[in-house]
Amino acid sequence: MTRRELQENVFEANLLLKQSGLVIMTWGNVSMRDSETGEIAIKPSGVSYETMRPEDMVVLSPDGRVLEGTLRPSSDTPTHLELYRAYPAMGGVVHTHSAYAVAWAQAGRDIPCYGTTHADTFYGAVPCTRPLTKAEIEGEYEKETGKVIVETFSGRDPMHTPGVLVCAHGPFTWGKDAMDAVHNAIVLEEVARMACLTLQIESSPPGAGQALMDKHFLRKHGPNAYYGQEKA
Amino acid sequence: MTRRELQENVFEANLLLKQSGLVIMTWGNVSMRDSETGEIAIKPSGVSYETMRPEDMVVLSPDGRVLEGTLRPSSDTPTHLELYRAYPAMGGVVHTHSAYAVAWAQAGRDIPCYGTTHADTFYGAVPCTRPLTKAEIEGEYEKETGKVIVETFSGRDPMHTPGVLVCAHGPFTWGKDAMDAVHNAIVLEEVARMACLTLQIESSPPGAGQALMDKHFLRKHGPNAYYGQEKA
Amino acid sequence: MTRRELQENVFEANLLLKQSGLVIMTWGNVSMRDSETGEIAIKPSGVSYETMRPEDMVVLSPDGRVLEGTLRPSSDTPTHLELYRAYPAMGGVVHTHSAYAVAWAQAGRDIPCYGTTHADTFYGAVPCTRPLTKAEIEGEYEKETGKVIVETFSGRDPMHTPGVLVCAHGPFTWGKDAMDAVHNAIVLEEVARMACLTLQIESSPPGAGQALMDKHFLRKHGPNAYYGQEKA
Amino acid sequence: MTRRELQENVFEANLLLKQSGLVIMTWGNVSMRDSETGEIAIKPSGVSYETMRPEDMVVLSPDGRVLEGTLRPSSDTPTHLELYRAYPAMGGVVHTHSAYAVAWAQAGRDIPCYGTTHADTFYGAVPCTRPLTKAEIEGEYEKETGKVIVETFSGRDPMHTPGVLVCAHGPFTWGKDAMDAVHNAIVLEEVARMACLTLQIESSPPGAGQALMDKHFLRKHGPNAYYGQEKA
Repeated sequence: MTRRELQENVFEANLLLKQSGLVIMTWGNVSMRDSETGEIAIKPSGVSYETMRPEDMVVLSPDGRVLEGTLRPSSDTPTHLELYRAYPAMGGVVHTHSAYAVAWAQAGRDIPCYGTTHADTFYGAVPCTRPLTKAEIEGEYEKETGKVIVETFSGRDPMHTPGVLVCAHGPFTWGKDAMDAVHNAIVLEEVARMACLTLQIESSPPGAGQALMDKHFLRKHGPNAYYGQEKA
Repeated sequence: MTRRELQENVFEANLLLKQSGLVIMTWGNVSMRDSETGEIAIKPSGVSYETMRPEDMVVLSPDGRVLEGTLRPSSDTPTHLELYRAYPAMGGVVHTHSAYAVAWAQAGRDIPCYGTTHADTFYGAVPCTRPLTKAEIEGEYEKETGKVIVETFSGRDPMHTPGVLVCAHGPFTWGKDAMDAVHNAIVLEEVARMACLTLQIESSPPGAGQALMDKHFLRKHGPNAYYGQEKA
Repeated sequence: MTRRELQENVFEANLLLKQSGLVIMTWGNVSMRDSETGEIAIKPSGVSYETMRPEDMVVLSPDGRVLEGTLRPSSDTPTHLELYRAYPAMGGVVHTHSAYAVAWAQAGRDIPCYGTTHADTFYGAVPCTRPLTKAEIEGEYEKETGKVIVETFSGRDPMHTPGVLVCAHGPFTWGKDAMDAVHNAIVLEEVARMACLTLQIESSPPGAGQALMDKHFLRKHGPNAYYGQEKA
Repeated sequence: MTRRELQENVFEANLLLKQSGLVIMTWGNVSMRDSETGEIAIKPSGVSYETMRPEDMVVLSPDGRVLEGTLRPSSDTPTHLELYRAYPAMGGVVHTHSAYAVAWAQAGRDIPCYGTTHADTFYGAVPCTRPLTKAEIEGEYEKETGKVIVETFSGRDPMHTPGVLVCAHGPFTWGKDAMDAVHNAIVLEEVARMACLTLQIESSPPGAGQALMDKHFLRKHGPNAYYGQEKA
């Protein structure tokens, strides 16, 4: 796609994120990677969703040089770049401070798979990273945030569990493109909310169990998926 | 009624369910049975509420053959069919992933009757099913879901307690028609929320008691009901 | 005022109650007493707020005979009448099933005065009644509900604490007229919510204390009140 | 600026506060100080946001004499004046009864810094004051409220932690002007909500830690801030 199309796509995804109610103030950003060119577009830093225009989206090379746009990219850009670098299948990344996902991140706990709502989108627990070290925080903080996410997914396919909680910070989600990543941000917040409510009723929930996790994930995502309509 | 009328009825009920705020994404479906023909109309699988049309509703024979419509029916269809098969009085069935009802399902616990809001619609606790076995999950999963609901209501009239929580999954509700089933889905979510809030205040709530349950259920539903206006 | 004006007043108050978000379905009703004639207007039973008209409001004599209107009055009418009978200063009564107030009622607990938001409107705890006995429930249930509220306020001025929780049921509020009673219903729900949230943070909150309760209540309600503008 | 401009500024900030959803009824007020003249404009007491006009904003001298306006100023005015007197950098002050911040105030507890959402705006915990004494409550209550806030910030820069919880009452926030103070009121409520949710998941959250607090506060507020766009 053209750079302009990439900007328009990521602009629309940022507006959808705002409309979803997950973002107050300017606390959220969406990026998208063009799989052909490898170029990445991202929301500018601290700019209001109300006045933002497609041409304000900053286009970057894979190593973070500005190719298009006059504004500073999101301060979280190095985290996004680190994720794209590690995972070629990723086409979109979202960061928010949505309240329930933040609560789990502030609790420093993985979101266990308590039921099918979770299992339909996230295979297994949504993991929480370890806390960053003092050296990591005082060094290239945002890049180190990306690296600790990659460390957390070591030996695990991030496309099967498209989200993470950065300890004491908040959620990142991703997907095959920007809209898919926004979708997963909305689902993660709902799943985080349901898990929090579950704990208010029962301090030791039974969990979904392996068979149910496999069933729900595979009926939507496996080669024999039968949820939704056949792709044309 | 004609098939077209059945489709229109179930289409309206699906829109009402969406407007109620109980459903995010496409996580909900309503079906309806024509009591004369026995034919059942249901929402197509994974189709957006925004673009859905009455003619997209899939009409099925009681044993699940497609009679009308070009889309796949909801993946939960075998659960709906199992319920209609077991209970001739059922005219509508709803499934959602509404957050508070899901929380009780994920906790694996019945919703006790803590007060009159509950008693006005649900006689006694809203039960939670046992977990499905590995064999049931790996077999005809959605049909087995219907069967475990029927098992849960063994010796109990489902029309007096028009809802259930499927363990680690979420709620199903029903009624004399599709609109009634949607009404009961809305009430179940509110009752689940109130019960959850009650536990935050008092870990051992007293419960409504048998006399109050009888009084509230019967003043709305018994032969001497005196709530609302006389039916014309 | 004329009967028609009484109907219009109580009609407007019922609409405001619905708009406040405290009521789902038809789970709420407002009544109003004309202090000159002693006549009482109340919402009809089980009628939708959307289609309701001023002339549908039922006008009753103090002892409950229908003076105006063709619909059945709210099934909670005997509770309203009992309150008007006991307290001449009462000009409006509201009943809802708002979720947080219901949660306290289902917990069977008074809402303690934890802070100034509560103290500004309710002097001291908002009390929860004792459970009704089996005989009371099976007898004139709605009238007995009014009587247990009166019993709960024995030795206490209900106009200083314009609300109550009926155990395992829900809140009633009142005021000098219908609009004032609706105002107090909105405040009670917010106070109930804040008290519930307070318990999630601290299981033994310190409470507002006598001096703060006196100060806040009296700066709004006493002879030396200085909140708001001087009455013309 | 002119007095009229000051009135218009504080009028707009009061409307924004109402639109933010933090205020029900008339439970909130915003004031603003003109740094050149030292004059302070504030919302009138108990006046509805719907009918309020810019000219209704009351303009006061630093010692509280009315310079402009025919209505009584907010009953909380002496608290605002005390804060302006103690802190020359303060240009706006907000008071609300937003539910989650009130819950922490009613719990009598500081909001610990559990994560980066908090650290981006508030350096360290948001403190809760000690309870006022009986003598303070029965004396110049609103002025004493201001004094206990100043006491709480002894040895601490209030512009780095622009908010406080008054014990058993609720939050005050401030900023360089009225809009900044409203922004901080919105953030405080969200931070209070996230902290409350965090406690529901984990009773002993790890906390953000010193390095993360320093990093997030300084990347937005220090001389080397790199969040947002460069100021023109």
